[in-house]
Amino acid sequence: MHTLYDYLPSGNGYKVRLMLRMRGLPYTLVERDILRGETRTPEFLAKNPNGRIPLLEFPDGRHLAESNAILCHLAEGTPFMPEDAWERAQVMHWLFWEQYSHEPCIATVRHWTIHVPPDTPEKRWLMEQKRVQGLAALKLMEAHLQGRPYFVGDRATIADIALYAYTHVAPEGGFSLTPYPALRAWLARVAALPGMVPITAG
Amino acid sequence: MHTLYDYLPSGNGYKVRLMLRMRGLPYTLVERDILRGETRTPEFLAKNPNGRIPLLEFPDGRHLAESNAILCHLAEGTPFMPEDAWERAQVMHWLFWEQYSHEPCIATVRHWTIHVPPDTPEKRWLMEQKRVQGLAALKLMEAHLQGRPYFVGDRATIADIALYAYTHVAPEGGFSLTPYPALRAWLARVAALPGMVPITAG
Repeated sequence: MHTLYDYLPSGNGYKVRLMLRMRGLPYTLVERDILRGETRTPEFLAKNPNGRIPLLEFPDGRHLAESNAILCHLAEGTPFMPEDAWERAQVMHWLFWEQYSHEPCIATVRHWTIHVPPDTPEKRWLMEQKRVQGLAALKLMEAHLQGRPYFVGDRATIADIALYAYTHVAPEGGFSLTPYPALRAWLARVAALPGMVPITAG
Repeated sequence: MHTLYDYLPSGNGYKVRLMLRMRGLPYTLVERDILRGETRTPEFLAKNPNGRIPLLEFPDGRHLAESNAILCHLAEGTPFMPEDAWERAQVMHWLFWEQYSHEPCIATVRHWTIHVPPDTPEKRWLMEQKRVQGLAALKLMEAHLQGRPYFVGDRATIADIALYAYTHVAPEGGFSLTPYPALRAWLARVAALPGMVPITAG
């Protein structure tokens, strides 16, 4: 049995929960409240020195961190990771783009909005910077999805799972999705995949 | 012949230049000055809607962006990308960690130090935040490298190439590497790999 150390509001954790379910791999969920520092304890740092969830513990005791690395590992050999070299390259492109140009803006603005509203001028300034960058990310996604059912090829891959995680809850950070019809149609397509559950499901 | 759109001071571009050389793939370098907005022109955005270098153009006209996605694509089938599933997972872990927890701190502080010193209190505050995060990244690397020759397994992979790119020039951003002997020994090991050239080489 796998053990997933996770924090339910986390989109990064949600990606892994979805992939485990879609793979039909049962797991034990161990919640760690990041707001209470529960990923910075000596016990947790011994498992992941980077002090972050999600962290997947394998039945033999090994650990793997970084949500998109976990996705790659779990998806290998399934339809969620293409065999074709060029399609794989594009999947990797979107996974790295998600972690560099999407998550640090859209997920962070949502997290701050819900849990830790900025309480200094500097943090408010940074949140506005991230809001601008987040809007640019949504626009780029909308343009890419014009005439495409999924991010890579004609079926869902881990690029879609990774990007769905924080995009579908972007409105919780104040990002309206109304201006992006292709993106909304894609969200509905991903939400209809077999095995989908809400982000609040453990 | 490949064409690489790049900016020579970029560690992200340097990763790709190194991999192309180590693969023995000749390429044409097309420099784009990010300080002059040369990656935000309509002509460049048509090739990479994200407006960033490095961008690799293949002989058949296709394009691939995101430095670490390019590394994965170029390294497949070479010793720089392991065949073993667990080693691959660890390589992917470090590649995502590099783009999320290392590059946005260490590379950004270096870039601002060299090219665009912060000119507002907010930017100075953010630079200090990034400096703290960058130090944490260096400490994590030092701890991991204790007793290990490379980041994954016993030979160099793209995890080393990716992490070398901005770590070896971290002092240009004011990060001293003196406190990290295992990291410095690893830097020397990577610098001695066949095909290595300086970051300033085109």
